[in-house]
Amino acid sequence: MSVLLEFSMFPTDKGGSVSPYVSKVIKMIRDSGVSYKLTAMGTIIETETLPEALRIIQNAYNELEPDSSRIYSSIKMDIRKSQTGRLEGKVNSVEEKIGKINK
Amino acid sequence: MSVLLEFSMFPTDKGGSVSPYVSKVIKMIRDSGVSYKLTAMGTIIETETLPEALRIIQNAYNELEPDSSRIYSSIKMDIRKSQTGRLEGKVNSVEEKIGKINK
Amino acid sequence: MSVLLEFSMFPTDKGGSVSPYVSKVIKMIRDSGVSYKLTAMGTIIETETLPEALRIIQNAYNELEPDSSRIYSSIKMDIRKSQTGRLEGKVNSVEEKIGKINK
Amino acid sequence: MSVLLEFSMFPTDKGGSVSPYVSKVIKMIRDSGVSYKLTAMGTIIETETLPEALRIIQNAYNELEPDSSRIYSSIKMDIRKSQTGRLEGKVNSVEEKIGKINK
Repeated sequence: MSVLLEFSMFPTDKGGSVSPYVSKVIKMIRDSGVSYKLTAMGTIIETETLPEALRIIQNAYNELEPDSSRIYSSIKMDIRKSQTGRLEGKVNSVEEKIGKINK
Repeated sequence: MSVLLEFSMFPTDKGGSVSPYVSKVIKMIRDSGVSYKLTAMGTIIETETLPEALRIIQNAYNELEPDSSRIYSSIKMDIRKSQTGRLEGKVNSVEEKIGKINK
Repeated sequence: MSVLLEFSMFPTDKGGSVSPYVSKVIKMIRDSGVSYKLTAMGTIIETETLPEALRIIQNAYNELEPDSSRIYSSIKMDIRKSQTGRLEGKVNSVEEKIGKINK
Repeated sequence: MSVLLEFSMFPTDKGGSVSPYVSKVIKMIRDSGVSYKLTAMGTIIETETLPEALRIIQNAYNELEPDSSRIYSSIKMDIRKSQTGRLEGKVNSVEEKIGKINK
């Protein structure tokens, strides 16, 4: 099974510059050993089960919670039973169809 | 604490008409006793903790998983430490500011 | 054709309490005459064409832009060619299947 | 001004394998000359104005519309008045804070 989960999570009571908070969350993800990729709009992780993916969401909240009293998050998931390696695979499969793309 | 979570979750391998699947998820939520509201674009729940809210996501997946091999979900959360009753409260507070609105 | 669009849009440089800004956007939507419904997590509109729906997004930004230098938005769309009245219809169709629900 | 827009858009009446449709949209974006990056969960574009960004959404719909009667889309925007180059810049700024990351 492959759970692709893209998310952003940030405090909304800290003004416009939230990158110190975002950095704490990315550090936690990197240290967790999960497959991930950081983009300009969020972080994409790939896990083998849904509980693992939801645990990352809980842990991200745990990183931000001590410093903030209001937190916003946006999450998308694409869950597929019979594939893995989709963090790279989905993009490569588009490239095979239409040629070189920015990734 | 108040966790407002809005989500939609549906199989993407069943064609355009997914309302039987959506209905199973709504039934589970109604039976769970959590505060909820169904809208044309998803379901909004309010819980007192994040683990409770994430458990609803896991349970929604458990409802759909036996019938589908690919599932998509979109989720938003607004988590606030010092308020409750925001499922009604947030909308009413806008109404107090600008007068009668559709809700 | 029926375009259902659910969105939230808020400044992220104004601290945790953004309801004055949200209220300006809702007022614009109400005055525009479009079919809409306010929820605890966003506003749902229904239009007959995609350009009409995207114009509401542009107008929402125009309301917030004078007061803010950073704005965040989350949007979902469900576009269907051969139906209308889905702002009420989708929820009612779930209710027909499983009985009384909160809406 | 910098509009970062992340989106996914796909037909929901075509079964689980939508990559031919997604490929058409990516091809249109690449050919449009806009700054973009494809990820496993969507496409991120950066434009200098909001109308440009919304035009890409309209054009993506125009690509899919002839083949499908139901289309779903999920969109996030982060709009900032006084910066550009954020498609690379936001990720690099996290890397400066916490060291080497997957991007």
